Amino acid sequence: MQLTALEKQLSFLREIDRLKTVIRQSPLLDQSRRENSAEHSWHLAMYALILSEHARGPVNTNRVIQMLLLHDVVEIDVGDFPIHGGSSSELQAEQESRAAARLFGLLPEPQRKEFLSLWQEFEHAETEDAKFAKALDRFQPLLINIFTGGGTWTENGVSLEQVFSRYGPVIKRGAPELWAVCERWVSQHFSGQAAGIPKQAD
Amino acid sequence: MQLTALEKQLSFLREIDRLKTVIRQSPLLDQSRRENSAEHSWHLAMYALILSEHARGPVNTNRVIQMLLLHDVVEIDVGDFPIHGGSSSELQAEQESRAAARLFGLLPEPQRKEFLSLWQEFEHAETEDAKFAKALDRFQPLLINIFTGGGTWTENGVSLEQVFSRYGPVIKRGAPELWAVCERWVSQHFSGQAAGIPKQAD
Repeated sequence: MQLTALEKQLSFLREIDRLKTVIRQSPLLDQSRRENSAEHSWHLAMYALILSEHARGPVNTNRVIQMLLLHDVVEIDVGDFPIHGGSSSELQAEQESRAAARLFGLLPEPQRKEFLSLWQEFEHAETEDAKFAKALDRFQPLLINIFTGGGTWTENGVSLEQVFSRYGPVIKRGAPELWAVCERWVSQHFSGQAAGIPKQAD
Repeated sequence: MQLTALEKQLSFLREIDRLKTVIRQSPLLDQSRRENSAEHSWHLAMYALILSEHARGPVNTNRVIQMLLLHDVVEIDVGDFPIHGGSSSELQAEQESRAAARLFGLLPEPQRKEFLSLWQEFEHAETEDAKFAKALDRFQPLLINIFTGGGTWTENGVSLEQVFSRYGPVIKRGAPELWAVCERWVSQHFSGQAAGIPKQAD
């Protein structure tokens, strides 16, 4: 049966509903449960909308938003690879490429090609837009850990040095002003001076 | 204490984490639980990204995406008002306006003004962008009901006529081609001819 362009589009939008069931390591800020990848993607798009003035290079905010909206859809097939999980990045990249081909392949042309290319741009992290998007994708979970008194760092026995090496280069490369805030809060967290970290308003 | 612009921005991004705990009436497509408003907002932004060629008027896809990303943040203060709930729309509008003032008021200028105005544009539904955004906000839950064999319609004893009157005008106004699909599937659903509705690929 030949599907129309609209039928293909609806089939894709239906399929990506599954991203709401992919569970990440990070908790919500109220610590009631772990975050899923769909709501994480929404939050990152909001980060891009609000924080693009802090990007290192000139960025197109709307392209960054689009990139972040779709950057995690591959997890529908392969799941989330946690930053502190130590998985093989080569195997991960191969699995994610296959997932991207299948998922974006549900779309009609030229959308298939367009969104696959935007996803690849994010993965390669070479353009200013992609570097900023990658920086936000590290910055948001770092803030969760700061605002929940340790979060996945405590769970995984992660040290100050490991936080600096796992998050620092990516955030600094795309958004040095945001990394400056991270450095201060991370240092305060690990030195037990949590009083310097802002509280959430009630 | 005087907050910097960046501190205000982070305070807003932290506050809106709560949208992940606002539960809607609609289930996920796998019916494992109900959808929350953050992941719903992500899904709607994806609808806008994929379907904007089906808008009735000329739309700016990126503005529609921005509008849909932030259209529900007011629910952090007032909760979700279900389409089949029969609540007073005047009271709802007043509560949502106060919530918008408080939440966008966490942002520095000019962002406070800019996003408040974008939210108001969505609410008033007079521009082509807002009409299309509103149409998608009705279209997505309608599809959920279709793809889950009735969903909130069955729960609330909603008839074919009620579906047509509660969803039809808004979807038709912003995206007549999408309403044409709805009309066919809704009719098939209520006449017990579900065989005409596509199955999800495994």
